[in-house]
Amino acid sequence: MLGRCLNRPDPGQDTRNMHKKNVFYAQSGGVTAVINASACGVIETARQHRDRIGKVYAGRNGIIGALLEDLVDTGKESAAAIAALRHTPGGAFGSARFKLKGLEENRSEYQRLIEVFKAHDIGYFFYNGGGDSMDTAHKVSRISRQLGYPITCIGIPKTVDNDLVVTDTCPGFGSVAKYVAVSTREAALDVASMARTSTKVFVLEVMGRHAGWIAAASCLAGEKPGDAPHIILLPEVPFAQQRFLGRVKQCVDKHEYCVIVVSEGTRSRNGRFLAEAGTRDAFGHAQLGGVGPVVAEMIRKKHGYKYHWAVADYLQRSARHIASRVDVEQAYAVGKAAVELALKGHNAIMPIVVRKSDRPYRWSIGHTPLSRVANREKMMPARFISKDGFGITAAGRRYLAPLIHGEDYPPYRNGMPRYVELKNIAVPRKLKTGFKI
Amino acid sequence: MLGRCLNRPDPGQDTRNMHKKNVFYAQSGGVTAVINASACGVIETARQHRDRIGKVYAGRNGIIGALLEDLVDTGKESAAAIAALRHTPGGAFGSARFKLKGLEENRSEYQRLIEVFKAHDIGYFFYNGGGDSMDTAHKVSRISRQLGYPITCIGIPKTVDNDLVVTDTCPGFGSVAKYVAVSTREAALDVASMARTSTKVFVLEVMGRHAGWIAAASCLAGEKPGDAPHIILLPEVPFAQQRFLGRVKQCVDKHEYCVIVVSEGTRSRNGRFLAEAGTRDAFGHAQLGGVGPVVAEMIRKKHGYKYHWAVADYLQRSARHIASRVDVEQAYAVGKAAVELALKGHNAIMPIVVRKSDRPYRWSIGHTPLSRVANREKMMPARFISKDGFGITAAGRRYLAPLIHGEDYPPYRNGMPRYVELKNIAVPRKLKTGFKI
Repeated sequence: MLGRCLNRPDPGQDTRNMHKKNVFYAQSGGVTAVINASACGVIETARQHRDRIGKVYAGRNGIIGALLEDLVDTGKESAAAIAALRHTPGGAFGSARFKLKGLEENRSEYQRLIEVFKAHDIGYFFYNGGGDSMDTAHKVSRISRQLGYPITCIGIPKTVDNDLVVTDTCPGFGSVAKYVAVSTREAALDVASMARTSTKVFVLEVMGRHAGWIAAASCLAGEKPGDAPHIILLPEVPFAQQRFLGRVKQCVDKHEYCVIVVSEGTRSRNGRFLAEAGTRDAFGHAQLGGVGPVVAEMIRKKHGYKYHWAVADYLQRSARHIASRVDVEQAYAVGKAAVELALKGHNAIMPIVVRKSDRPYRWSIGHTPLSRVANREKMMPARFISKDGFGITAAGRRYLAPLIHGEDYPPYRNGMPRYVELKNIAVPRKLKTGFKI
Repeated sequence: MLGRCLNRPDPGQDTRNMHKKNVFYAQSGGVTAVINASACGVIETARQHRDRIGKVYAGRNGIIGALLEDLVDTGKESAAAIAALRHTPGGAFGSARFKLKGLEENRSEYQRLIEVFKAHDIGYFFYNGGGDSMDTAHKVSRISRQLGYPITCIGIPKTVDNDLVVTDTCPGFGSVAKYVAVSTREAALDVASMARTSTKVFVLEVMGRHAGWIAAASCLAGEKPGDAPHIILLPEVPFAQQRFLGRVKQCVDKHEYCVIVVSEGTRSRNGRFLAEAGTRDAFGHAQLGGVGPVVAEMIRKKHGYKYHWAVADYLQRSARHIASRVDVEQAYAVGKAAVELALKGHNAIMPIVVRKSDRPYRWSIGHTPLSRVANREKMMPARFISKDGFGITAAGRRYLAPLIHGEDYPPYRNGMPRYVELKNIAVPRKLKTGFKI
């Protein structure tokens, strides 16, 4: 009897559901320390509007979850678990490196998406990713109308690369910037204290294949002339080996040590990645190391300095333990805004961060059409790069500085951060058809 | 007149000083996130005993500062600056990789030390380092007696490698352990969310040339079966390539991804470092990468999995932002104890951490003769290593777990940790003679 009672659907609830569309949320591309904070913003805000929004489903492994009809019901998660997303790095539902093809090339993918969305009564598509994902969200919006099942599509910005256009910054970037600035300052103190008898050169390789935003952020480690980092290598500046090696020597002569931060995408004048340069083994196999060891070895060959190098790789973009509070707040805010804008009737837009002032730092959330951000990339402007190409200007610092403001520590237990693992309970499939990716 | 007054020595102070010996403190070898916390413990405690201790001098660049009569007067630093050492990584006075030779090989170095100590009325030598430094401190103690100028020599343990004997753990290790465990958990969340369509294997290279303590600490990232790290490679366990590659595949088959933490000192059965294996370039130059990329490439060749790798290098041992509170407390405590033990008349000893219980973790400070710790190395005991050689046993976890307990965040300003830079004002030289190193 009790069992029947508990299992009995609430008819009132059901009736209301008939008029409420569900949400589909997906994470896309490389994850960040704060992408789950955006998810948290979406889900918590949707839960505040139960009168107008039905279920919030998430795609398992991003958009692939939609194509495979592999959805997760976030409604099965407690409020505490959803709140904990705010301080949990990685992608809580799984992300995917999967770009939908053009409409002409593969119309069936889009048709499948709409079919799945229709089957699950999805009225809102929130896609959390970078420039490619904004393109996808834009296309889905158009196609859904063409196919007679219009869906409200909102992009939610996310990328450690900070290369989305229009928005002042991208959630994910501030935290990797803070990690890189803090790590550079800490490692520099180490090297400075060892330089007399040991390591004189330290090279830190950071992410940034096309744009040098992350390497640039390391400038915040220094506060006065002579402070590390002494040299920053950016993809925007063609690498000039002799000038670079000369600068390293100057620096060691003057300060006894030299700290270099290098973007993985640093290229020579001919456009070739430095990481690819001259590092095939005796069998002609491609090099194993990244650009960090290449640069370090180049210095040793020329000057003979003892060196160390580090490659931060995923550590930098998952380092929630040292996230920027500003970044966490903005990541949450764009998630929240996505839902609110959708409810206001907006479509095919992306919430953006608008900077109101540098000092004190003030920002608000605006929005821009997806068509303006899709498939575009924002490079570092030339006015942010010092004349010699090895540093960041005052204007660049002014832009970067507030993005790392504030700490937002996760809770700890037994010395370890308490990151949440969701139950991720699957939504029962409704379609008989499968789909091949 | 005023100038003369200010410069006039205080005769009362001077008389008292006649009976008070000065302290010489030096940092040695690779620095850590908490070696300055030990310096803070020494200086603050000495300041509490002004009736019995004169000045506290530090060697600029460690023991080299003594040989070159290049001393720093910590008395010129404010109480706030000294207190800030507790949260500042690196070596505040400079450290050195410089091992005094044997007494027979180079008696002149020891004679010079005593000469400088005598000139500056040094009665206490506090040497903050690892096993080599304990040997030096021990020798200085003996020679000072032989040369008729007996000095109280106390070693202060420090090493991220955790390889000092007798003491339960070494200040510096707990913080690198916490950094590695936290970073492994964070990167694992990243990889897990990308594995379906992208990176399946992540390799994190950590320090530990002879002993695998640091890599072992990564086990604390996992809390239940299946959690990362899935494989830990230790220098204590000869690397078995086929078995390793088989395990990686098993892991990817089961969990969709595999996280590996590898000690830089991992060796094959013939004793050769893996980092040296097959990674010379076309010109026969030594490899650029560390063991991380070697292991990652080995996996790609066999299984074709997409991989990422990180090399934490100096970031791990300077990461004061994520220091273990237990480690900071112990680092301070051994510095404090060094002064207190010296004042109690102890000589040629090293304060040690004594574990009273695992859960709840309780510890106290004891001491051991320098002769027992000099030039010895503590490997991971076999009972801490799982039978298959790829993991850590429950006994190992029990040992490691409390060492990362608690957070001890530095203060921040504008999003960056406020690390102190001391004035490091030189003590006027008293000797006419120089010294060549």
